[in-house]
This record gives sequence, C-alpha cells and structure tokens, in this order.
Amino acid sequence: MQESIEQYMQTVGQQARKASRVLASASTQAKNNALSAIYTALQNSESAILAANQIDMTKAHANNLDSALLDRLELTPTRFQGMLDGLKDVIGLADPIGQITDMAYRPSGIHLGKMRVPLGVVGMIYESRPNVTLEAASLALKSGNAIILRGGSEALESNKAIAEAVQHGLKVSGLPENSVQVINTSDRAAVGQLIALTEFVDVIIPRGGKGLIERITKDARIPVIKHLDGNCHVFVEAQADFNKALPIALNAKTHRYGVCNAMETLLVDEKVAAEFLPQVAELYAEKQVELRGCPETQKILGSTVIAATEEDWYTEYLGPILAVKVVSGMDEAIDHINKYGSHHTDSIITENFSLARQFLACVDSSSVMINASTRFADGFEYGLGAEIGISTDKIHARGPVGLEGLTSQKWIVFGDGQIRQ
Amino acid sequence: MQESIEQYMQTVGQQARKASRVLASASTQAKNNALSAIYTALQNSESAILAANQIDMTKAHANNLDSALLDRLELTPTRFQGMLDGLKDVIGLADPIGQITDMAYRPSGIHLGKMRVPLGVVGMIYESRPNVTLEAASLALKSGNAIILRGGSEALESNKAIAEAVQHGLKVSGLPENSVQVINTSDRAAVGQLIALTEFVDVIIPRGGKGLIERITKDARIPVIKHLDGNCHVFVEAQADFNKALPIALNAKTHRYGVCNAMETLLVDEKVAAEFLPQVAELYAEKQVELRGCPETQKILGSTVIAATEEDWYTEYLGPILAVKVVSGMDEAIDHINKYGSHHTDSIITENFSLARQFLACVDSSSVMINASTRFADGFEYGLGAEIGISTDKIHARGPVGLEGLTSQKWIVFGDGQIRQ
Repeated sequence: MQESIEQYMQTVGQQARKASRVLASASTQAKNNALSAIYTALQNSESAILAANQIDMTKAHANNLDSALLDRLELTPTRFQGMLDGLKDVIGLADPIGQITDMAYRPSGIHLGKMRVPLGVVGMIYESRPNVTLEAASLALKSGNAIILRGGSEALESNKAIAEAVQHGLKVSGLPENSVQVINTSDRAAVGQLIALTEFVDVIIPRGGKGLIERITKDARIPVIKHLDGNCHVFVEAQADFNKALPIALNAKTHRYGVCNAMETLLVDEKVAAEFLPQVAELYAEKQVELRGCPETQKILGSTVIAATEEDWYTEYLGPILAVKVVSGMDEAIDHINKYGSHHTDSIITENFSLARQFLACVDSSSVMINASTRFADGFEYGLGAEIGISTDKIHARGPVGLEGLTSQKWIVFGDGQIRQ
Repeated sequence: MQESIEQYMQTVGQQARKASRVLASASTQAKNNALSAIYTALQNSESAILAANQIDMTKAHANNLDSALLDRLELTPTRFQGMLDGLKDVIGLADPIGQITDMAYRPSGIHLGKMRVPLGVVGMIYESRPNVTLEAASLALKSGNAIILRGGSEALESNKAIAEAVQHGLKVSGLPENSVQVINTSDRAAVGQLIALTEFVDVIIPRGGKGLIERITKDARIPVIKHLDGNCHVFVEAQADFNKALPIALNAKTHRYGVCNAMETLLVDEKVAAEFLPQVAELYAEKQVELRGCPETQKILGSTVIAATEEDWYTEYLGPILAVKVVSGMDEAIDHINKYGSHHTDSIITENFSLARQFLACVDSSSVMINASTRFADGFEYGLGAEIGISTDKIHARGPVGLEGLTSQKWIVFGDGQIRQ
C-alpha cells in the first residue's frame, strides 16, 4: 500500500508538471475563460457539493469533532455563494504573468529586463475549510500555476466534489484537467510524499495549526511559504493621540479574536501609562478581555490584572486575553517586539514624526504600521484581491501572499548577435 | 570539543543578529564610511594578508592540492588590487535599503506600500577563493546585513587576515565589528551548526562544488540561495541568421570553459542542420572542442563525432566538450531544455518574432535569451555591480544575485487612527 501511494503521488506530480507547462504560456483570456467555466460548473453542481459536504459533516459529528472545526467544515448555501463571489473576484484581478519590467540596454548592447512567470506547481496542504480548495485553485490558475491540493481528511468528500466541478470547467475550457488535482486519499503518507516531490513541485503552502506547519517545514525538501503565528503588538508611544490609540487598541484586540492579525500584547510608554491604561482597561472590561500585566501595569490597574509570565510575552492567545507591558520608551518597545514577536504585524501609535520613522526602520516584521489597527494586515485590505496565505518569512513572499507571491521573475535578454568579449 | 563548537556557533549567531539590528537602520553614509574604512584597513594590511596567504599556499602545496585549487587560493598583488577595486565598486552602488514603493491609499483610508529592508543575517559557505570573503562581506554590509563567513579550510589564514582588516575598518567607522565574522575553525561541525541556526541566520548562500551545495541544501533548516549547475543551451532555430548563430555558438562554448554560463548542449533545427553543423564544427575543431552528437549529427558530421548518450544531455562538462542534438523544431527544443537543462541560461537564435516570443514564454530558466551568448548571464554584465551568487531556484532570487537578493520588502501602513470595520 505504501508503495502504491508513492506511485500515486509520483503520477500526480508528473501530471501537475505537465499541466504547468501548458498553463505557463496560456493567455489571460484562456485562463479567465477557464475560471468562468469553473464558475458555471460549480453553479450546476451546488446540490451535489452540498450533499458531499453533508456526508463529511455526518462523519465529523460521529467522530465528535469540536464545534469550531464543525463550523469551519460546513458549507451552507450562503457560504457556497461566497465561494462563487470570491471566484468572480479572482477573474477580475489583473494577470501578473508576462509583465516585463526594467528593460534597459547594457553597455554590451544586450537589452536586459525581467519577466514575471509562474512558479510552476504549487502544493497546498490545509485543514478542514473546503472553501480553501476553490480559493487556492483559482489563484493558482490565474497566476499560471498547476496546483496539488491536499485538504483535511474530514473534508475529503467536499473537496472531491469541488474538484470535480473545477476539472469539468477546465475540460470545457480546453485547459489541462490536471491543472488542479485533489489528493483522493486521506492516507497521511501522501503529505510526506508531496513535500518531497522536488522534481515536480516548486513551492509548498501549508495552512492550518502551528503543529502541522512546523512538521511540514521541518520535513519539506521544497521551499515553504508559511506563517507560524501572529503575535502582534500595538505600542502606545508617549506622544500618542489617545483619540487614535484607544479605538485602535480596542479594535486590534477585540474586532476578532481568533485571527492572526489580532493584537496579543499592548506596550505602553511609561510616561503615559498612568493616564492611558485605566481608560483602555475600561474598554477591555466591557468586552470581558482578561489582562495579564507586568508589575508596573498591575501597580496602575490594581489587583484585577493577573501577573504576566515570561511565557505570556511569547503567546498568541487567539482569544479574549491580552498581555500588557509598560516600557521605558522606544528602544525597549522595539527590542521587545523583535525579541518576543512573530514578525507578523506591529503598530505604533504616535504623533512624533521621527519616532514613527525609527519604528518603521527598526521593527523587523512583515507589516509595520503607524496609527492603524493591526487588523488591516490581510490580502483583501491590502488590495491583493485574495490571499493564498500569510508569510512571516523574509524570503520570497512576506506578509499577505496574493497572486504575485505565486510568481517569479526570470531575466530576459534580447540581442542581435552579441557575444561576450 | 563538539559541545564547545556548538557554543561557539551560538555565540557567533547571537552576535551577528545583534549587529544586524544596528545595520538595519544604519544610514547609507554610515555604511559607505565603513566600507571606505575597510578599504584603507586592507591597503594597510596588504603585506600581512599576502603573508597569511603564503602560509595557506605552503600548506596547500604540502597537502598536494591540485593546480586548479592552488590557482584559486593564491592572492597576488594584482589580485589583491582587484579585490580593492571590487570594494570600490560596491561603495559606488546605490543603497537598496529604505526604498519605498507602491504607496497608495486603500478604500479604508490606510496608506499602504512596501519598504525594502535587509534580510538580517547571511550565512556564506564557500571554498578556496579568499577574495570571496571581501566580496561577500562588502555586499552584505552595503545591503544592511550582518554576515557569517565560512570559507574553505585551505584558505583559513588568508580569510582570517582579511577579516581582521575588515573588522578593524568596522571598528574605526563605528559600525559593529560583529557585522562580519569569519568562522575561525576548520572543524567541519561548524557548517552543520551554521545551517541549523534558525534563530540567528536568515539565509544560507553556498558557493562551491555541486556535492557541497547538495549536502548543504539537504541538511539546511534555513532557506538556501543556490545554484547546482549550469547546463545551458543554445538553440539554432530554422530562421537563425548564421552571422549571429556562428559567433554565438562559438562564444557560448569557448569563451571560457569552466563557468556556469557556458553552453553545454547545442540544439539545431533539422531544417538547417546540414548547412549549419559543418560550419560550426569547423570552428570548434580549431578550438579542439570534442563533439558528442545524436545520430543525425553523426550522419551530417561523420565519424569524428562521438555518439552522445542519454547522460550527455544532462552533463555540465565545464570543459572543451559539447553535446549536439538535431531537433525537429521549436517544441522539441523547448521540451529538451526544460527536461535536461538546469534552468540556468538558455538562448535561441532566430529572426522569427513569434518563435522568439514562444521561446521566451516557455523556457523555464532563470535567464532566457534571444540572439545573445549565454555568457552574458552574470552580475557584472547585468549591471548588478557585483554578484553574491547565482540562483537556479525560482523562490526569492533568480539568476545572478546582487544587492537586491540580500533584501526583502516589508509592508508599511500609515494611518491616522484607522480601525477595521
């Protein structure tokens, strides 16, 4: 059996590579036609896809999966329409492929520039949410990449039903059906195979729990675009305008709790802590946010505040808990963020121009903000149209990853017979 | 001992990370001042460095190292001046750090853009040539990165002497001495440690033999910018202008043999093979280039041509040997290049506009050329000023890697109190 999975994954890889060669030179119109055909195929398959999702849901209930997971797994007619709307958005996005930039003559006479091209084959590994299947497939196609999708085993029937409609659309439009392949087994060995297909897969994008992503990163033989966690900070500097600082501190923590761009630690300059903390604590109390503070915070806010441990500064709570630290100023704030943070998104609230510039230069995160809520760090708010993931790495893609993150640039040289002297 | 190497490498890593925080916000002038101080320090240390190199050379002779390696190891006064000239060039390069691009308002009112920042800490692993020590150090500094250098054990004394001058220059200029560190042991365990310092090192750049690079890539826990080999092609298409095709075919193969951008396989369209091959074979014969051909090539050129095996199509000869294949046209040429090539540099010779466009779109290589010699694929010819390596990967940097390859972009958001609705 082990051997046959190996064989199966090799075949999937080969087919993806072959499809990617066709996609690489497919015109924008051909790709958009395919996405439109997929749209129609999905519309026609709505009842079949929702029925398949019901099979997954029944199994999930039987297996006593927790309610958060059940919620992510479920496809309702409204969510289905949301998927279709997302697909329409991708059709409307500009095609990044073929963009030629920086063409200029070199002293040798060659005409040198860069051309944007697809990465080739994307391997996507994700958990539960079946709408990721369509999102990832549509972004891959639009950017001229083939994609191999490995969803969670609990969503297998939903994903297979979506993939069937996608492949039907591809077939109708004339692009290779193997441009989008869903791994049709829930055998875990398939993941191990996928992340070692160096010959056929150009990048792996894992989405899911930290444990999954750490395992994949450790074992992958292929570059991985990943984000492990979002331990985001807001620093209320001494010259902060409280009319900005208070709404931002509230929004960054409480707008949504379970998201990677939510604030997890609030830093406050000691010069304004005694004034700011009681005001912001009142807002958090209304939302029942638990505060865990440094000794100085406790001194100001009193015994309602739990003492923060060293561990708290590293923690992504993803819930109504916030760590609070009073700092001596800019340098301590920057050091704290660079040491304990996850290089995701960090914001300073200040009216001081020079300090804002310093924060911008020194904070080593994928998004650095001035007087704005960390919650803005996502692909839709950044205008990428859609987001295939968020990267906290510095290599290749950083921050929200949209179409451009699925592309590369190659050098192009036009000559009329130049040789090297 | 093993434990103390671990401890030593941890310390080196920590020091590099600390220095990188200072470098990240160092001004262009501060960095150029440091590079100028290094220039002066090197001038003042010329005799000490050449003496250290003599110690390495004596050891290398005693160890019977081969002549190519001895040649790469040796520093002469002329080569030393060449190193200094290279450093002056780096001082003259534009500073990529701090460039802000694409600033635009989003519907939410936030002002969003991207800012170019250093990667942080570069780990460089290379063999024999001591001039790489200065080249890599100066490029890292200019782009605001700290660097950890691990040269070949045969060049240890030379590298230490160069590093001493570099650190003296750093000290004089006020930038952290630990911005540039040379591993001061030839214990191989140091390499294993370096490529696993995930907390302190952001990217590994190996330069050297294929074996070294494969080992490092396999074991590294940190992203690697690498190129394994340069199996480059020139395709003489049926509508090629022989006045361009002949000089390019000659130049790409014979201008220099031991370089990664030399042509290793010549592809010729069957429609012009009988006319083109005898003419080009004559040129190669003058240079004593051995030809290994497909059956069709043998039929045209006769028994002087050795039969090429399947292995030949994969081979980077790095010497006066050339594989020659007659192909049925564009599709076969593209398939051959994408299958057997190393995605380094490939060139088509043709006067046909549409075929040139097809080649450009479909050949999956880091440099794709039309009517130019593959020998142009390097950092100097591309105007990067200098080159820290060449990448045949598609992730992050592709082709010749200069200053920009040592940088990343972070998202920046300017607001005046915006919160997410």
